[in-house]
Amino acid sequence: MALSVGLLGFGTVGQSVARLIVERGDGLLRLSHIFNRQVARKRVDWVPPTVVWTDQIEDVFNARLDVVVELVGGLDPARSWHERALDAGIPVVTANKQLVAMHGQALLDRAAARGVDLLFEAAVGGGIPVVRGLREGIAGDQLTSVSGILNGTCNYILTRMESAGLAFAAALAEAQAQGFAEADPTDDLEGYDARAKLCILARVGLGLDVAPHQVACESIRSISDDDFVYARRLQATIRQVSRVTVVQGGVQARVGPALVPLTSPLARVIGSQNVIVAGGTYGRETTFAGYGAGGFPTAVAVVSDLLAIARRAGGAPASWPSTTAPTSVSPLQVAPYYLRLVVRDRPGIIASLASIFSSHAINIDAVLQEPGGTKDHLPFVITLEACPTTSMATALAEIATLPFHVTPPLGLPVLG
Amino acid sequence: MALSVGLLGFGTVGQSVARLIVERGDGLLRLSHIFNRQVARKRVDWVPPTVVWTDQIEDVFNARLDVVVELVGGLDPARSWHERALDAGIPVVTANKQLVAMHGQALLDRAAARGVDLLFEAAVGGGIPVVRGLREGIAGDQLTSVSGILNGTCNYILTRMESAGLAFAAALAEAQAQGFAEADPTDDLEGYDARAKLCILARVGLGLDVAPHQVACESIRSISDDDFVYARRLQATIRQVSRVTVVQGGVQARVGPALVPLTSPLARVIGSQNVIVAGGTYGRETTFAGYGAGGFPTAVAVVSDLLAIARRAGGAPASWPSTTAPTSVSPLQVAPYYLRLVVRDRPGIIASLASIFSSHAINIDAVLQEPGGTKDHLPFVITLEACPTTSMATALAEIATLPFHVTPPLGLPVLG
Repeated sequence: MALSVGLLGFGTVGQSVARLIVERGDGLLRLSHIFNRQVARKRVDWVPPTVVWTDQIEDVFNARLDVVVELVGGLDPARSWHERALDAGIPVVTANKQLVAMHGQALLDRAAARGVDLLFEAAVGGGIPVVRGLREGIAGDQLTSVSGILNGTCNYILTRMESAGLAFAAALAEAQAQGFAEADPTDDLEGYDARAKLCILARVGLGLDVAPHQVACESIRSISDDDFVYARRLQATIRQVSRVTVVQGGVQARVGPALVPLTSPLARVIGSQNVIVAGGTYGRETTFAGYGAGGFPTAVAVVSDLLAIARRAGGAPASWPSTTAPTSVSPLQVAPYYLRLVVRDRPGIIASLASIFSSHAINIDAVLQEPGGTKDHLPFVITLEACPTTSMATALAEIATLPFHVTPPLGLPVLG
Repeated sequence: MALSVGLLGFGTVGQSVARLIVERGDGLLRLSHIFNRQVARKRVDWVPPTVVWTDQIEDVFNARLDVVVELVGGLDPARSWHERALDAGIPVVTANKQLVAMHGQALLDRAAARGVDLLFEAAVGGGIPVVRGLREGIAGDQLTSVSGILNGTCNYILTRMESAGLAFAAALAEAQAQGFAEADPTDDLEGYDARAKLCILARVGLGLDVAPHQVACESIRSISDDDFVYARRLQATIRQVSRVTVVQGGVQARVGPALVPLTSPLARVIGSQNVIVAGGTYGRETTFAGYGAGGFPTAVAVVSDLLAIARRAGGAPASWPSTTAPTSVSPLQVAPYYLRLVVRDRPGIIASLASIFSSHAINIDAVLQEPGGTKDHLPFVITLEACPTTSMATALAEIATLPFHVTPPLGLPVLG
């Protein structure tokens, strides 16, 4: 018998989920209720007339559905709806990354106590089945790291800066015009969106409870088109990379722009694509890539979760791997660095920089300068050998106080 | 309570599976029996003393284990052991691609009838969780194609020819010396190994029963180092590509060497890595990549399947998507072509080739000739616009009868 589905939220993803359910012909899923605020303006004519449209959440809960799909997003009231469904023994499928990142363990415990599923493939990487891949597909490995390009907006902006030579503001404006960035892109650019996804992957892949506020985030706003020219000269490009690594005594976790070698899987996804690379003790690198955003790819993940419930045919859900809190969560600790400066040229600049690096025991690897700068606006780059990121941060703060900068200096870690 | 595991076959993968089980500390799996012919020579000291070593299959079946892992390979007696275990209600985990490709549906039906699992993540792509990814992860999509680099031996040989300029024979010898190719590499080079995997992916991803003998295979033995030079000039490389595509009225399926653009995910995996790209109506391209061979990556897949059974804690297995036989299975039907010739130079060669192509309505796209050939051994390449592969095969057969060849002409499809 078909699984009756209640859909909470009828935005882009919700409409795509409805489409996929309606267009399926196998009788496994049946769209029963669509809930949305001011639902009248949402009505479409391509869903069956049997579907109940409502803006009263009670209608959904009173209908005793087989599964609830929460696509409303945000922490409240989404969390209370999750709890209410789970407590009533109704499985929940969601794309709500912030809620799962913040309260995933409590909700999973609640689901387990009731013997029902809470599935969230759509919360990370859109249509890429990485949650299931880490949870089950390579569960036999001992994973030690998860890295990824987890935010399609940042990846669109950075790859457009790279391929078309756009300045940051132009690439952002283009992303907004194309629907790849929101009017307020803060969550994407500052790394908060990717951070939530990274916390979910840390839980699923590494069995570690990492809270979003524990993960260091850096903005991509300070990347300039010049940086792509220098990165290319270093056989690298720039991406917003999310990375969590198990280290002695805890984990390192960071979301932010970094130089990645052109040969890395992280360098190869373009536009709004996402990629996740899991590092394991036995299987080494396993890569998952695809479309990380958009209505239909995300809807594929939601419907796949629904089918997993339907095909289990009432059996108990599989248990999730147990998780523990890491003893410590630190930012990246040691890395080679890329430092880009734009200066008003004058004698002694390199000497003053070298003196600061020397005082922090940081070794200069190379100084690069592309032609085309002017005396009043001279970009150049210094690459630095691997050093503690705390030393680098201190050195960078001292350098920022020097009087010759046209724009603030930019330091980016160089990933191996 | 720990799942008791009987291991059939203690070769490279079997030993790696034993390692992973022994090194796990979570009490979910317990290695109970190890079966191998002449088992005495296989004994190792790092498995617990409670493990029963035997060369009598009856010992395994009499022990009423929770799960049997079949790593013996081949069709017989593996098939009868699968049947016996499933009939006794014992789930089976296997890496046996030939058996699953040939008799997968009958075995899955048998498993379903008994309400037990038959899992075979390890049969395709080693540690890459593509079976689970297609079966569950993107089950919500409607997949229309699956392409992949499915044979690590061929990929090792071809990428070494590409990166080190080795001739085919030298690259094969190196692969054998490194343990990436067997003494008799026929199954790998001719495409039979990849074909079995492609049939499994067609079943799991497209819901189609394609039998191995229905899939056209072409050998990679005729690829020369020259071909990589020309491929590079065409912004492409050469890979053994396995591909099945749903078309009007059936499927197209082929395993064999092809030109792939350098920007394709298929071009980017090197050495013994594998990649699988699923094309879907809603999620577009989803890519899975990693180490497709070797003891530990394959063991990760086996142990992940075991954990899936353990974590289900006795619940019924999820049902597999239903499959149907395609109405027709044909080779690739239309493609642009790469034709490489090595000739004794004389006037009129191009004219005679052009005449044959013209008589089959095949349009020449370009003629390429790299410097360095001699009058007695002159390689050159003709690229041809998209044409029916049957026309191309006929033209190629006619061309092969011309008197000026030093080596047989080679035609390769160019994938988009």
